[in-house]
Amino acid sequence: MRILEERILKDGEVYPGEVLRVGSFLNQQLDTELITLMGKEIADHFRDKGVTKILTIETSGIALAFATAQALGVPMVFAKKHKSNNLDQVLVSTKVFSYTHQSTYDVVVSREFIDSSDNILIVDDFLAKGNAIIGLLEIIETAGAECAGAAVAIEKGFQHGGDKIRDMGIDLLSLAIIESMSDDSLTFRHQD
Amino acid sequence: MRILEERILKDGEVYPGEVLRVGSFLNQQLDTELITLMGKEIADHFRDKGVTKILTIETSGIALAFATAQALGVPMVFAKKHKSNNLDQVLVSTKVFSYTHQSTYDVVVSREFIDSSDNILIVDDFLAKGNAIIGLLEIIETAGAECAGAAVAIEKGFQHGGDKIRDMGIDLLSLAIIESMSDDSLTFRHQD
Repeated sequence: MRILEERILKDGEVYPGEVLRVGSFLNQQLDTELITLMGKEIADHFRDKGVTKILTIETSGIALAFATAQALGVPMVFAKKHKSNNLDQVLVSTKVFSYTHQSTYDVVVSREFIDSSDNILIVDDFLAKGNAIIGLLEIIETAGAECAGAAVAIEKGFQHGGDKIRDMGIDLLSLAIIESMSDDSLTFRHQD
Repeated sequence: MRILEERILKDGEVYPGEVLRVGSFLNQQLDTELITLMGKEIADHFRDKGVTKILTIETSGIALAFATAQALGVPMVFAKKHKSNNLDQVLVSTKVFSYTHQSTYDVVVSREFIDSSDNILIVDDFLAKGNAIIGLLEIIETAGAECAGAAVAIEKGFQHGGDKIRDMGIDLLSLAIIESMSDDSLTFRHQD
């Protein structure tokens, strides 16, 4: 998505450890108009796939997931990273290893919000090693639901999580794929 | 907002300890259409107040804050509850006591996303004791910005955080105010 690639080049900041910071427009301060357009782009790709629900994981994918859900006219659910006081019902859960934080955390969704009648589209902001999305795929499978595919704003192509997910047969849409990244250059993978 | 009050009566669940669970439409599974309408309602109230930015706190207020920001055509920022690896810049922070979790946590916003040129509208899902919103007001003051007001989906009127915030002279819009709540009844405060 050219408008996103241009914005990454303009406002993205590269930090040591292959960290790309896009907090000024994507995941701490949010450019509402851009994210709305990104949600429409994702919705257009999956419009004929019979998506019943959007699933994301807290926190930074929520706005893009919401914009996608608006464009498809379906509800959105977010998985939580820990158990909450207000969630005393049956949960579907899995464990996810965070490459960024070098630790494992629980991901939980209430079983009442995902069942075998659902065809779920996963939406998140970043895809690096792919662990968060693979965790969500496990939750979808455990709940007996179908997965219509997955979509992310930015895939770090050089960390190969996207390849792993495509190899699983998942229809994965990445609005921008970073092929390589260093202090002074950033190149995108060409997509048709 | 009648449509929200009706939905709370239909799908809200009251739990011991004055907990109102609205996870099926507001803060875990999200009714996209309802939240979009709620964002428009908030935007209409504050449309002439020169709002430059929406501020919320992770996690469950993000979708409503985003919908409000869409309707006002402004960016949205969310405060984080802890420091992140990807945020190695100057922060504005405060401490908030959570009544739900009976513990104190840090709330932080990057200083680059809020400054003295901003006129901030705070948006959140719930208002009970008011501690989260008072924390955000402190952050706005520390950053030297103005506050255009605050808006929440559901105010628990009987916990008096809303009264405290109105007494501070803040224009507070609550889309639904619960006056009293028990296992078998739930009454709303009449609002003009």
